[in-house]
Order: sequence, then structure tokens, then C-alpha cells
Amino acid sequence: MDATVGNGHDTAFLAELVGPSGEVYGFDIQQQAIEAAHVRLQEAGTLDHVRLIQDGHETIPDYLPVAKSVQGAVFNLGYLPGADKSVITLPDTTLTALKALMKRLTKGGIIVLVVYHGHPGGANERDALRHFTQRLPQSSWHVLEYGFTNQINHPPFIIALEKKRNLS
Amino acid sequence: MDATVGNGHDTAFLAELVGPSGEVYGFDIQQQAIEAAHVRLQEAGTLDHVRLIQDGHETIPDYLPVAKSVQGAVFNLGYLPGADKSVITLPDTTLTALKALMKRLTKGGIIVLVVYHGHPGGANERDALRHFTQRLPQSSWHVLEYGFTNQINHPPFIIALEKKRNLS
Repeated sequence: MDATVGNGHDTAFLAELVGPSGEVYGFDIQQQAIEAAHVRLQEAGTLDHVRLIQDGHETIPDYLPVAKSVQGAVFNLGYLPGADKSVITLPDTTLTALKALMKRLTKGGIIVLVVYHGHPGGANERDALRHFTQRLPQSSWHVLEYGFTNQINHPPFIIALEKKRNLS
Repeated sequence: MDATVGNGHDTAFLAELVGPSGEVYGFDIQQQAIEAAHVRLQEAGTLDHVRLIQDGHETIPDYLPVAKSVQGAVFNLGYLPGADKSVITLPDTTLTALKALMKRLTKGGIIVLVVYHGHPGGANERDALRHFTQRLPQSSWHVLEYGFTNQINHPPFIIALEKKRNLS
């Protein structure tokens, strides 16, 4: 699952990873992103097993029933590089998407959040994600945070979740 | 370089890594640690290319001239498990050792600090290390910090330094 398709780099990477027998879902609310990813995947020859959905990732439950299991998901938060910088991911919808994916994640499955937080609104989303993930029970989830600490200009950092068991 | 030999687990790992043509230095101020590591390395058959030194790691400059290059170093901070918990690594001596190793590190070399900070005195050392490493120039050093954020009881975390170039 690429929860933020953007220019399709991660979508293409995931499509390579799952191979011809796998399936990738990609969500993005912006037409420009879906079109760029479409071209990229077509060129890579992996468009066949990717489902691109032009909709907000908070609608994941509308497209994936709870019984549908997800092995991995990526979020690249913030705005789409090269597009309208006022269109940003937001705390509420990001958390809705994250929670929906956590429910569908298989044991051992991983969700990676790349948290850009230097833009207006970015700090709010960062804080909401930290608040939520730091309180996940350690019996059910590994929550790992990592990032460069000596860089200027608010470098992005990673929050990674691994599901330790199915009841959470 | 194992800057905190302890029970010798990391020393043995480094000795495996460098192989028969490599050389590992291990420092520990406690006799119990040096003896435990000696036994472990002998059993692993790698004692020959390890130099165990019973001395504080702040004396690294006394044993390694500045021209001696170091490819990697590990610090496991805090106290020696199973020994006197009042014998702990300390901010000043840890920083002296770290700076000495940074000078001797080759380009692309890595220093890994495992920061235990739940014991009395641990928070001081943690804060001193963060203060120092977060101010290293990003033109010369990558400073990466990572750890689990949803665990109780002050889990250890990692500060990793990679030298980007030789002038620093």
C-alpha cells in the first residue's frame, strides 16, 4: 500500500517488491500524482498489478474490506513536490488511514511513515503522529523512530511500525 | 574498537568482522569485563587479533597515535550487567573517548553509541551526548538517532555517526 502516491517512486518500488503475483494499492487525492505514477509504472512494466485510486487515503476502508490483509504500507507525508504546496496531508485523515491500515496489517507487517514537518502545518501532523504512535502497546507493536539529528531545515524522519501479533 | 568491552559480545562480533588480517582494540576499566571477554574470544578463536586493554576509554590517545586509523567503533554505555551498578560510564570520559575516535576515524567510518539512560546518572550522559552530536557539522558528519518510542522503562537507543570526509 502506497498511502501517498505522489510522483509514484514508492509505488514503483513496492510494485517491484511484490512481483507479478502481488498486488499494490496506491492512493492520492491529486490527479497530477495519479497521472505521474501511471506513466512511471507503465514504463517500469508493473502497472498491471497496481491499483491506483484517486481519492483521499482516509477512504481506505471503502476500498479494502477489513478482511483484506496488507503486508506493508508507506506514507510520504507533506505536500507533492512540484505541485501546489498548500495541498498537504493532515493529522486527522492521516491518522484515519493509518488506523485502517493497522487493522488490516498482517503479523510481521510494517508501516513506514516518512514525516516531513518543515512546511506550514507539518509540525501539527508530526506531533499528532508521535502522540498516537508512542502510546501503542509494546506487546502488540514495535514503534521505531529514526532520523538525522545534526541537519538544519527540519529534515524528515521516519516512524516505522511493526505488528508483533494479530490482536492489537 | 570496542570502547566498552563489557562481557565481550561486541568485541567478539568486531573480531569476526575484521577477520584474521584485521585488528580490534577493546577498552574496559573493569578486570571482570576484560577476563570475561578474554574467555569469550579464546573460545571463538579470535583472541589473536584483539588487543584487550584494562583502562578507561578516555586513555585511547595513550594507546593509539592520531595517525592510527579506525574504521569503526562501538560504545555500550551505562554499567556492566551482572557487576557493580555504581561503576558507570560518565559524560566527560565518554566524550573524551568519542572525540579521540572521531579524529582517528576513516572517511566512511562509523561510530555506534548504544545509550542506556535508565540508571542513575544515565540521563546526564544521554543529554551530553545529544548536545555534542546534534551540533556536529552536517558537511562532515551524518548523525543518526534511532530507538523504540513506545516502550516503558527507558529503553536504550542508538546514536550513530558516519564520517563524510576527513577534515572535520
